[in-house]
Formats: sequence, structure tokens, C-alpha cells
Amino acid sequence: MINFQTSPDRYKHWKLQISGRVATLSMDVQEDETLAEGYKLKLNSYDLGVDIELADAVQRLRFEHPEVRVVVVTSLKPRIFCAGANIYMLGTSSHAFKVNFCKFTNETRCAIEDDSHNSSRRYIAALNGTASGGGYELAIACDEIYLVDDGNSAVSLPEVPLLGVLPGTGGLTRLVDKRKVRRDRADVFSTLAEGLKGKRAKEWGLIDDHFPTSKFQESVDARVQEILSASASDVSGIRLNPLQVENSAERRDYKYVKVKLNREARYADLTVLGPEAKLPTTPDEIQKLGDTYWPLQAYRELDDALLHLRVNESMVGLVCLRTIGNANDLLALDETLAANRDHWFIREILLHMARVLRRLDLTAKSFFAFVEPGSCFAGNLLELLLASDRSYMLNNSEEAKVAVCVSELNAGALPMSNGLTRLQSRFLADPKKVDEVLAHRGPLATEDAEAAGLITFAPDDLDWEDEIRVAIEERTSLSPDALTGMEASLRFAGPETTDTKIFGRLTAWQNWIFQRPNAVGPQGALTNYGKPTQAQFDFKRTEPP
Amino acid sequence: MINFQTSPDRYKHWKLQISGRVATLSMDVQEDETLAEGYKLKLNSYDLGVDIELADAVQRLRFEHPEVRVVVVTSLKPRIFCAGANIYMLGTSSHAFKVNFCKFTNETRCAIEDDSHNSSRRYIAALNGTASGGGYELAIACDEIYLVDDGNSAVSLPEVPLLGVLPGTGGLTRLVDKRKVRRDRADVFSTLAEGLKGKRAKEWGLIDDHFPTSKFQESVDARVQEILSASASDVSGIRLNPLQVENSAERRDYKYVKVKLNREARYADLTVLGPEAKLPTTPDEIQKLGDTYWPLQAYRELDDALLHLRVNESMVGLVCLRTIGNANDLLALDETLAANRDHWFIREILLHMARVLRRLDLTAKSFFAFVEPGSCFAGNLLELLLASDRSYMLNNSEEAKVAVCVSELNAGALPMSNGLTRLQSRFLADPKKVDEVLAHRGPLATEDAEAAGLITFAPDDLDWEDEIRVAIEERTSLSPDALTGMEASLRFAGPETTDTKIFGRLTAWQNWIFQRPNAVGPQGALTNYGKPTQAQFDFKRTEPP
Repeated sequence: MINFQTSPDRYKHWKLQISGRVATLSMDVQEDETLAEGYKLKLNSYDLGVDIELADAVQRLRFEHPEVRVVVVTSLKPRIFCAGANIYMLGTSSHAFKVNFCKFTNETRCAIEDDSHNSSRRYIAALNGTASGGGYELAIACDEIYLVDDGNSAVSLPEVPLLGVLPGTGGLTRLVDKRKVRRDRADVFSTLAEGLKGKRAKEWGLIDDHFPTSKFQESVDARVQEILSASASDVSGIRLNPLQVENSAERRDYKYVKVKLNREARYADLTVLGPEAKLPTTPDEIQKLGDTYWPLQAYRELDDALLHLRVNESMVGLVCLRTIGNANDLLALDETLAANRDHWFIREILLHMARVLRRLDLTAKSFFAFVEPGSCFAGNLLELLLASDRSYMLNNSEEAKVAVCVSELNAGALPMSNGLTRLQSRFLADPKKVDEVLAHRGPLATEDAEAAGLITFAPDDLDWEDEIRVAIEERTSLSPDALTGMEASLRFAGPETTDTKIFGRLTAWQNWIFQRPNAVGPQGALTNYGKPTQAQFDFKRTEPP
Repeated sequence: MINFQTSPDRYKHWKLQISGRVATLSMDVQEDETLAEGYKLKLNSYDLGVDIELADAVQRLRFEHPEVRVVVVTSLKPRIFCAGANIYMLGTSSHAFKVNFCKFTNETRCAIEDDSHNSSRRYIAALNGTASGGGYELAIACDEIYLVDDGNSAVSLPEVPLLGVLPGTGGLTRLVDKRKVRRDRADVFSTLAEGLKGKRAKEWGLIDDHFPTSKFQESVDARVQEILSASASDVSGIRLNPLQVENSAERRDYKYVKVKLNREARYADLTVLGPEAKLPTTPDEIQKLGDTYWPLQAYRELDDALLHLRVNESMVGLVCLRTIGNANDLLALDETLAANRDHWFIREILLHMARVLRRLDLTAKSFFAFVEPGSCFAGNLLELLLASDRSYMLNNSEEAKVAVCVSELNAGALPMSNGLTRLQSRFLADPKKVDEVLAHRGPLATEDAEAAGLITFAPDDLDWEDEIRVAIEERTSLSPDALTGMEASLRFAGPETTDTKIFGRLTAWQNWIFQRPNAVGPQGALTNYGKPTQAQFDFKRTEPP
């Protein structure tokens, strides 16, 4: 089982050093500390284990070190920054694992950009050696890139010429969409195994500047000081403690998130428990609660549960989402969050909730939401329902009406990767419905929720059990691949952003290539990399586009 | 060899009937008239041969029948509009052919929408029977959809539940992005093999209206009359004659487009000859030239050459683009086109040129442009260079300067699928360069063109031959799959549109699924459709998207 929890004292591959308002995140990958057998992590190449530490470091910076304004990403290895994803690991991994690995590394790089855009923390890639493949893709996720001029170090994307696969960790997309490198230059760079060095790399927009070895450190330091002088920060963070999880054969239970695995039937029940009543309402009191504050703890648990289901429970094709709790407590909580969103801790909590919900949007499993008596699909938890592929809400008799409810947080605090809220994405055909729904404060009982367009189906007591049983059976009987492609298409209507292009266009092409004999067959380039044998291609162009 | 040329008198599967300002395009597929062996085209299902006729009809309407304002798309078969792409054809086709087939059918549906958006011709899908799969995808490419209420007829997308593949001819994208159907309803509809009938189909936005059998024809007619009363048209068209092509073992030559096939070396040389001097400048004189007018004939030839290279020359991975002619004649021509773009014929010519250039953008082969003495990369032909993955321009001695040149047509008349001009896509990093380049009238010699950012490399006389030889050898040695994915990512920086989402996100996912054992393996759903055996899935979710 792959465990996504770690902390700096347990890092094997990264050093996180905090000095005042500057963090230095140094890569120093230990060759033998791999997540699986059969490969060595030479030249600062990485596997999922290395990236789990990076994701943890970025997350901790946000909560534990809000005072940090600049993050310098660099290497402790001489002459090499990072050689990218380990080729032998990729070459020996299953298709499913490759796909999962790439998705997580992509999410981590998006999290770096999220920190930069939304929390104004500046990431500087200090390339004190060659950054190739995923190494350059990590650099290009940072705000600024500086390369040492030592006569040898270069930036490169050698995936196409050497491995017959794409720079799929955002590389191609960020090249033309983020750094806006001219497409013909991007074409040349992406087919040039040895990459480009200082002068030309700067001229083409691949790096921001280059400095000789003797001046590299002082030049990077000078840039760091320049940024610091323009930013102030006197806050101190909270501690992210390990999550407590109880695992059994059929369950994975956290404090607020409970997962029941129905492996034979290929689905899981995931239930989120709502917050306690009367949570504090001022930032200072909330910060005292730290990581036990419901919105932080519950969403950290949800995040871990999603990652666990993705990587360790691949037979689960459908996740049935439920909530249990008091809607009014949730609404009170959302009011506190909305009122204090300018406070650093509340802002980070909201941004974290948004990232976890985006992780759900990007998860290749079906999600059905079930709204039953005792549920609390209100405010931020209503997003779970809106993120689902469909929802079923009990239309029961008068005595115990089921209801859903919106809060201010549904109006923009928790955006999807496409930049829209889930309500906006839902009502593309009729944008004024978004305002109508948001204007309605107070519970929406089943018939009103249906009329407002918030739910898919509203079976009554008599039909409920049968209808849900059949829906689950039907969904889990369909081709998982067709569902994955269908969900990836239907979930992201409307505008596209760099993020959605990475998870849509780029990832879909990479996954196609990850199936092709020219990459992964016995004579494929990925399979034969580093072996005495050479790749043999079938040169037919198959005409995608 | 597959031939993309046809005409109404040779159609086997469609009837094109013109009555005043209304065209009726009726599908009546002949079961046995297939493009290949091994399947029958039952229930108005289609193969590439059927779609080549449809593409021809849409193209002819634009040039031969500009007076037509409404096109009614319907069926001559009782109770069935169209059952979509033929499953047995798909099940027995190679991966390459499936991919090619889907791309062409997608381009045809985009051509329908191009006609609607840019030439204000209204397409009405009169579904006098069930429209399933590709049948509904054809309907959804039309402006309005009317379904008969006969107790049986439905619209449906049964690909996911029945075949384990996607509705990949734009279906999923148009569902949520064009018709803006709510995503949970789109999810239900796309997993419901039997589809939805009149009332619910309308409520969910899948169709515009439904009428009982007895009133169907008169209701559609009434809608046609309503549209006609709001539009006027008193123009008459020109005739599109067959293109003359000379084929030999290593060549495919048209009047203005010459193709030399270097199959062993896996590339083709494609050379476009520029226009004659002193072409007429008034719309009336131009219309007298009809389909022999250079911009129409040369681009029709280019279109046919591209389709031929795609489908019949899959080993060609690289196309080397050259032009021969007088740049001033091209600039004079562009001036005429720009000055008369409101005239129906000139407008259609420009829209056609734009479609052909988009076909090039979407072609899964590398394109290199070579600018040599005697070339005429000016105005509209400069777009060939801008559409290329890279360009090489000779930097020769004083006596015979090589030059490129912009015209007004580079400023917006020939947009890419992403809605931008090729200059805008090129200079995303620095939009004011677009204006600078457009402001420069007159020839740009090599060093100026390089400084302006228009070309990739400028070797001198001494290096030219070697550099080009090496560039071609290197390109054709790389994995064709990796290049396809790379080019699809680098060519479409910037905004995404419904078109680019169909060719990017949706097509890439479909191509992934077209490789997966769950669809095409011995136990896959596509393989086993209609057989007594049942599909057996590997239910692992592999974690795209």
C-alpha cells in the first residue's frame, strides 16, 4: 500500500530549510530509497515516493510557514538539478501506475502554481546543474528559472527524441501556454535531446537568466532579497500533525471521513461527517484549533482518502458520496470562513478545500451523491454533490424533509480547474440560474432542489432503494475506460485553462502514447532506454490530429 | 486507394435536392455499397465512403447553391434517421484507420457549423426516426433538432454502454459545450443505451422540439418557412468540377499543387505554385473564372493532397512545404480578396482557404517550410509557413535575396481552430509583434524575417543543404506517436474552442480508448458487439483523466 503521509523529519530525498522569510527546498535523491524494486534513483531522478515528499513540503509551507515569501528550489547534487522521472521505473511500471504517477506529479506542480498565484509566494528554480525532462518541468512550474553557466548545464525536454513519450508533466503545455515560447522554437527544443544552455535558453524564453558558476549563488540571493524587500509578512503558522486512520479489510476510517470498500461490487461508500456545533468564529481562536479545525481536518482526510482510492483501490470504479450532520452548523462555519477570508489561515484553509475538490474533479472514478435524511449537503459540502457525475435525493413524505442548502462559499471560493464555480459549470446554458440559486438562502427541500436544477433524480421512499441499487449495478458494469474518457469530457465544459489543458489535452495524449508499442512494446523506446538494444519504430502516422 | 472526390450524380448514400432556397439532404445508405469488405451498412449506418459524400454535399452547397438558406438533413429510411458509424466497420478496422475516419467525420461536422456561423445557412436536423450514436452526433452539429413522436423514435449516445468507446465525433463535447446540457443529465444520457424520446429529450435540451408523426413534415416545413421569411438571397453559384490529378509511383500532381513522395525516407515534398499575373479584380469577372480561379483551385488541390497524404500515405511522417511564384502576384490577389470579402463568392473562397489551412493544422504529420529563391511565401501562402512546425529560410548572398511578405489576409481572414490568427498564436508572449509584422508591407528579407520572429532558422548557402538534410533525417527518425502528441500540444497554445476541444481532449481520449483491450481486445466491447459472446472487462480504473 502506498502511503501519502509524510513529514520533513522523515524525508529521504528533499531537505526543507527555513531561514526567516526564505525557504530552500533542496533535492538530494537517495538512489536506493525507491518505492518499488528494480530501479535506482540516479542523478536526482524521481519516483512517486520523491514526489510525495515534494507535495508534502509545498503543503507544509502554506500552513506551517506562512511567513515564508520566497521558495528556492535547488539541488544538493553537483552539476545536476534533476533528471526527471526515473525511466526504469516508468519502463517497468504498469499502464495504470504510470497514469496515476503522472497525475499526482501534475497535481503537485499545479499546487506550486496555486501557492504562487493565490498566496503570493514566489518560487525560484535555482538550476545549479542540468534540468532535463521532469527536472525542467519542475522548474517551469516555478515563477522564475535561473541556470548556471558552467559550460555544461542545460535545460532540456528529451522525452520525444530519447523515450518516444511526451514531456507530460505539464511540460509541453507550460512551454507554449505559460512561458509562451514560440511554437517553432518549442518544437525544436522538444526534439533536441541535449537541450539548450544559458544564452540561447534565455533568448528563447526557456529560462529567465543565467549566471557563471562563481556568481550563481550570489545572483540568486540578490534576486531573493529583491523579492523580500517588496513583501512583508509577520504571521506564524500552525502544525500539520499526522492524520489518524483506522484501516481494516473493508474500511478506511478517519475522524470525519469514513470509507467502506465494497470491492466485489466495485464501489466504495465515502461519508463525510459535518462539523461540530458552535465552532469558534474569530481567526485567533480558530488558529488555536490548528489542524483540528473541521474544514482543515475533514478536507485533509478527504484528500488522503481520494489518493488512497486512486492508487491502492483501482478496482473501485464508483464512489458513493454521503454526508451526515447538521446543515446549520455547516452554514455557520461557512459564514465564519467567508467573513475572515483575508486572514492568512482562513485563506489557506479555503484554498486547500478548493484543491481537494479539484482533486476529486480529476479523479478517474465515477461519483454519485446520495442525499438522504440526516445529510448535510450544505455550503462547502454541497460542492461534493455538484462535483458528482449525478445525484439522487430522496423525495420523502412530509415528516422528515430532506434538504440541500447553498452558502456564500458556493459563489467563488472553491473554483474548478476551468476557473468557473461548479454552479457556473452546471448552468452554462442559463447563467442566471446561478444567481437564482445563490440568492436562495435556507434549505431547499427535494422538489425545490430538483426545480432549481441542483439534483439529477428524486425517487420517493418506495423506489429509493431499488433505484440506487440498480444505478450502482449499472454504473459498475460499464467499461471503466469508456467511463474515464466520458467523465473527463463531461466534467470540464466551458473554458479551458493551463491546468485543464494539462489534465485534458496533454494527459490524454500521453496516456495514448503510454499504450503504443512504439513507446512500451518490446521494441519501444521507453522499454529499450539504456539497454544495448535499440528502439524499432512502426513509422505509420495514425492521424490523431 | 481512397478517393475523396465525388459529386451528387455519383452519390450512393445521400440525395441532395434543391428547391428554391431550401436544400434537402436525405440519407439513404445502400447496405452493400461499402468502402471495404466485411460489413453491411444497415440502418443508415455509415463508413468513410458515406461521409465523403456528406462532406462533398456541404462543400457544394456553399459554392454551387449560395441561394440556399436552409438545409434540412433527414432520412429516407422508415423509422430510422441514422444509426451512426458502422460498428462492424470500426471493429474490423486498424487503429490508424479508425483514427483517420473519426478525424474526417469530425472535420465534416465542423464544416457544417462553419457554414452556419459564417455563411448564415441554417441546418435543420429533421429526425423522422431514431438518431443513435453518430446519428445524433450529426444532428447535434446542426442548428436545430426536431424529433418525430412515433412512440418509438429516440435520440441516443449508446457508445459507452454498448461499445465501450466514446461518442467521439464531437458528441460529448457538443452535448455540454454547444447545447450546454447539464453535466449530470449528459452523464445519464450518455450511459443510457436506449436514449430519450420527445418530451424528456426536449426538457433536457437534447432536441429543440418534437412533433407527432402526422404533423412532423408540416411542422418542419413551417419552421423552414419561418427562417426563409427572415432571409433574402438572390445569388447563383458556380460549378465545382472534378480536380485533375496525375498520379505516378512517386508523384501526385495537380495544376498548382505538386507532391513528390519519398517513401523510403518517410517524407513528402509538397510545392504550391502561386497564381498567374493579372488576375481579374472584380467579383463578376472572378465569378466567371469559377473554380479555375487560383485561390479556389489551388486550395481545393491542397485539401485533396492533404487528405490523400493522411489516408493513403501513412508512412509519410513529414511534409516539406515549398512555394514557387511571384510574391507580387500573390499580394495583388490578396488585395482583391480582401477588398471584395463581402461578395458571397469571395467570402466562400476565403472561408474555404481557412478550412483547408485548419485541415493542415490538424494533420498528424510534421510540417517544415523551406523558403528558397523563387518562392512566394506571401500573404495567404505565408500561412503555410506559419502553420508549419518550423521553417528554414535561406540567408543567401546579396544578388538574389529571398523574402517573405505579409498581406491583409494574415490579419484575421484565415483563423485557426482556436479562434486566433496564426500570427497571434505565434506571438502569444508579445502580442504587439503581431501589429509590427502586419504594419510592415513589402518584402522581408531573411535577416529581417528572422528578427521579426517569422522564421525558425536561417542557414546560409554553405550550410543550407546539409542542415536541411539533417533536419529531415532527424525528424523522420523519431517516434511518430510521440511527435503526434507533441505537435497536437504545441500547435494549439492559447484559447480553446469547441473545435479544439473536439480535436484535443475528446479525440485524444477516444484514441486512448481505441487502444484499450476493454474496447478492442479479443474480449473488448467493440470486438464483441453483435456477437453471441459478451465483452469481459478488466475493471481497473487507470486514473486518467
